[in-house]
Amino acid sequence: MTRSEFHVLISERVLFLDGAYGTEFFKRGYIKGKEPIEILNVKAPEKVLELQSEYVKAGVDFLLTNTFSGNRHKLKKLGYENYFEQINSEAVRIAKEAAKHSEKKVYILGDMSSVGEMIQPIGDLDSKYVYNIFKEQAKVLIESGVDGIIIETMSDLKELKLAYLAVRDVSEDIPLFVSMTFEENSVAVTGTSLEVYVSLFNDLDVDAIGINCTLTPDKMVPLVKKLSIFSKKPIFAEPNAGKPTLSADGRLIYKTTPEEFTVYIEDYVELGANIVGGCCGTGPDHIRYMTKLIGERKPKARKTEELNVITNRTYMVEVSPFLVIGERINAAAKKKLHAQIREFNFENVLKLAKDQEKEGAQVLDVNLGLESVLSDEHFRRIIVELDRIVSLPLSLDIQFNEYLEVALFEYPGRAIINSAKAIKEDLDAKIRMLKRYGGILIILAMGKEIPNSPEERYKTAKDAVEYAEKNGIDRSRIFVDPLVLPLGANQDYNVTLETIKLLNKEGIKTSIGLSNFSFGMPNREQLNASFLALAMHYGLSGAILNTSEVTTVNILSGMKKILKKESTNVSVEDVDNDL
Amino acid sequence: MTRSEFHVLISERVLFLDGAYGTEFFKRGYIKGKEPIEILNVKAPEKVLELQSEYVKAGVDFLLTNTFSGNRHKLKKLGYENYFEQINSEAVRIAKEAAKHSEKKVYILGDMSSVGEMIQPIGDLDSKYVYNIFKEQAKVLIESGVDGIIIETMSDLKELKLAYLAVRDVSEDIPLFVSMTFEENSVAVTGTSLEVYVSLFNDLDVDAIGINCTLTPDKMVPLVKKLSIFSKKPIFAEPNAGKPTLSADGRLIYKTTPEEFTVYIEDYVELGANIVGGCCGTGPDHIRYMTKLIGERKPKARKTEELNVITNRTYMVEVSPFLVIGERINAAAKKKLHAQIREFNFENVLKLAKDQEKEGAQVLDVNLGLESVLSDEHFRRIIVELDRIVSLPLSLDIQFNEYLEVALFEYPGRAIINSAKAIKEDLDAKIRMLKRYGGILIILAMGKEIPNSPEERYKTAKDAVEYAEKNGIDRSRIFVDPLVLPLGANQDYNVTLETIKLLNKEGIKTSIGLSNFSFGMPNREQLNASFLALAMHYGLSGAILNTSEVTTVNILSGMKKILKKESTNVSVEDVDNDL
Ligand SMILES: [Zn+2]
Ligand SMILES: [Zn+2]
Ligand SMILES: [Zn+2]
Repeated sequence: MTRSEFHVLISERVLFLDGAYGTEFFKRGYIKGKEPIEILNVKAPEKVLELQSEYVKAGVDFLLTNTFSGNRHKLKKLGYENYFEQINSEAVRIAKEAAKHSEKKVYILGDMSSVGEMIQPIGDLDSKYVYNIFKEQAKVLIESGVDGIIIETMSDLKELKLAYLAVRDVSEDIPLFVSMTFEENSVAVTGTSLEVYVSLFNDLDVDAIGINCTLTPDKMVPLVKKLSIFSKKPIFAEPNAGKPTLSADGRLIYKTTPEEFTVYIEDYVELGANIVGGCCGTGPDHIRYMTKLIGERKPKARKTEELNVITNRTYMVEVSPFLVIGERINAAAKKKLHAQIREFNFENVLKLAKDQEKEGAQVLDVNLGLESVLSDEHFRRIIVELDRIVSLPLSLDIQFNEYLEVALFEYPGRAIINSAKAIKEDLDAKIRMLKRYGGILIILAMGKEIPNSPEERYKTAKDAVEYAEKNGIDRSRIFVDPLVLPLGANQDYNVTLETIKLLNKEGIKTSIGLSNFSFGMPNREQLNASFLALAMHYGLSGAILNTSEVTTVNILSGMKKILKKESTNVSVEDVDNDL
Repeated sequence: MTRSEFHVLISERVLFLDGAYGTEFFKRGYIKGKEPIEILNVKAPEKVLELQSEYVKAGVDFLLTNTFSGNRHKLKKLGYENYFEQINSEAVRIAKEAAKHSEKKVYILGDMSSVGEMIQPIGDLDSKYVYNIFKEQAKVLIESGVDGIIIETMSDLKELKLAYLAVRDVSEDIPLFVSMTFEENSVAVTGTSLEVYVSLFNDLDVDAIGINCTLTPDKMVPLVKKLSIFSKKPIFAEPNAGKPTLSADGRLIYKTTPEEFTVYIEDYVELGANIVGGCCGTGPDHIRYMTKLIGERKPKARKTEELNVITNRTYMVEVSPFLVIGERINAAAKKKLHAQIREFNFENVLKLAKDQEKEGAQVLDVNLGLESVLSDEHFRRIIVELDRIVSLPLSLDIQFNEYLEVALFEYPGRAIINSAKAIKEDLDAKIRMLKRYGGILIILAMGKEIPNSPEERYKTAKDAVEYAEKNGIDRSRIFVDPLVLPLGANQDYNVTLETIKLLNKEGIKTSIGLSNFSFGMPNREQLNASFLALAMHYGLSGAILNTSEVTTVNILSGMKKILKKESTNVSVEDVDNDL
């Protein structure tokens, strides 16, 4: 199945995934205590074929390979590392065999999930290692002939992102579904909300965004609703068959009947779900009942809302109507800070992060200063350390594209890339990273030189924005920096204001580096705050500024009220199910 | 001589005043110890005639009556009250007689000077009483047939203003010259600078502005220079003939020779002096030498500068480029303050004045609140009390025109009248007072109702400004208040901003009542400061605001720097002779 074939198919009708493997194998007594169910692919392939054939007969469109725990890291932990290749290749072979028992075409999805241990900073695993683990599994699955890949039951956004990158680095052409699992409050156990998850994967090159496991069918309804509102991609959902209870003989019993299960699946479909199926506790009976009742429905049109946010793994802030980016993690102007960073001493960086959060910053700009004396590891570590403490999303102010990519690889969320010049070479590099890692881009309204007139600055920026759009980056993901020059250098600040106005008319967001206005002048706060008021009046959409300037922060509040541009930050604690 | 005859004459050539009377009578031994020299008019008129005839023969154009101390208050103190009418009427008769001994026309100026005691708050005299003293003398002089009046050697601006009002209330048609006496630092002993004096009398209905006495001819040059730069009226100067020394027999000896005297008089003429003469120590020889050397010169064209300032008696602030008016003496919104004022307890008013001065206010708005429960005396006393402590110039925010006039009568300087509606009736009343008392007017950009569009508000204001100009009030003396309405009432603040822009283009100054913007809202400071930045960017020239708002004051400083609109306040301590 090509990706375009998938997109045709998904537009035609609601599609069906299968039900559980693990719980079903246990229920049927095929598996004992600590064995991975995936070993059945090798040791009792007929049992896998049996269940999969039942799913095929139940009417699924997609059959998952029995490879949920089939990555090398997890198999190794369970003592089955030697079976890694066999488990995965056999799984595909069996599924393909089962798929034959259908009148309609059944597609095989290579199933992938967590490595079973946490990545830094939550755990100890190295992200590059985990990426390679996924890449290895994806390679075997794809080479064995799956029609697509599903990465499911993920509770760590970072791990999911690494798995996504791994799959896409093996194949750009294969359909790819991703799915996280959430608690009833729409937040994963690692603190990532459904919105944070969706906002990132809306940017990424996946074919469907889903949720699965953990929740009973009824409890999943509000999450499907959010998903249907915020996802820009086809959506899918797979609930569990109720909460398990322990039987007298020590087995887990899932009590949701196929009829009850399907009642809620129908709700999902009404909310616009494109693909439905079952997770733990569901079996062929659930799936059969579901496919029969839903039948050949056209997917419901969804009422979507723009979810344009900057996030880290636990915190998100809306890009509009106004974005406040704290400037103070900036080692370019601070020798001592730079020296500390070089020695991997991030104490002051973390303090600056905390301070700016208290002062009202929504996003933290991170500029490590002179990059030629730094290494990959500095950029990797700073992202891990800032992820470790609860802090704000980041704006990555990194000059060398190589280091920028190291940071983006490590970053668990939707960051700002600050910044690209309006030059093809730089734009191309940044656009590639935006597509690969997601995020928001700031484009400077300058090529090799700074245009003098507002019209030229506007034209330079607009051309760059249109170039990015032509290359797949919507203008909602772009800010233009209209360039603030020092008042002390006798620059005409009206050029900046007029450029903002022109861009604003065109629906292009703008963000300035405010403090440059007062560079070299006394009483900088007075000048910065004053200019901020003017720029906001001209339509400014964001600013990188010094949140320790009380006057500036007061003007920010005042102008937001005047312009009715009050922003919202949503941290995990604030998330509630009001949808 | 009519005033228009005088204006023709003064445009034709430099004119000559006479020399001293007092010092000359003493020198000639005509007068003993404590006798007023004016008694000679009654007891030895031939001696007065003799000296005056000499001045006439020396070539004067103006002969002063021998009535310097001829007001009733001063004569009474000297024990000569009974001679009041006779001294004044005889003086005119004698001068007229002397004037006959000339080929050219010699004009008689009724000479008036101080009552010799200080007015409140410096002294104890009541201003209305002093006004009446002057009025009585002016009446006798004018009825006796003088060609004009000169009020000279005044060291108290307030007393001079009262004398001016008195003369003008006796005759609107008579030429009137005024003259103050200054120390070498250009400041009178009461603290009034030459600039403060000139700025007030530029507004008033006088025919020439002069300086006389105290200084030797050389020391008076810098003052004549300032006068020539700042006066909008013809100017005159009369120095003393040097600093007096005591002779062996106890007489004052003035040593400047006629030749030396005339050297400096010629400097004055070069600087553009229209009328020259001598004060203490000068006699007919000085005058004769002067008239001969100067001859029939055309007055030099003067390079003038606009002196557009708000002042009290000791402090002045430039109207441009930006005026900061403190709003906090406002009993309209403060019940307790109003109750105190009603009881003539001005303690808190004075404290508010001091506080605002410290916070950076340049002018203090004075609004005593509900006026229907107040009396003339409240308005008189508040002006006297604010004059008593060193404080800032005032903006008189007084609704009832009757009370406004009481305050203006008492006020020693060039105040702001805040405000007139753009309605003929109100404009006429305010224009009359501007002409009578001097000052600056704020006109509201509204008639009976507030216009909704910027164009209408602008039109309303512009018509009012042009009406005032047609009636003799230059637009340099006018601010328009473009009306700031509460943001909380969902008013479109852009109407105010656009009105400012339109008026600014027309060269019409604008001033707003800033705090109204945030009326009824929380965090008022943030809103006020933000709006101030915008309004200043649109060309605002002044604001009535709360100087205790740190953010607002910071924005004020920032915007002034950005717009290069730094204002200057000049207190007495700052005055130096850098001209
Ligand atoms: Zn599950
Ligand atoms: Zn599952
Ligand atoms: Zn004198």
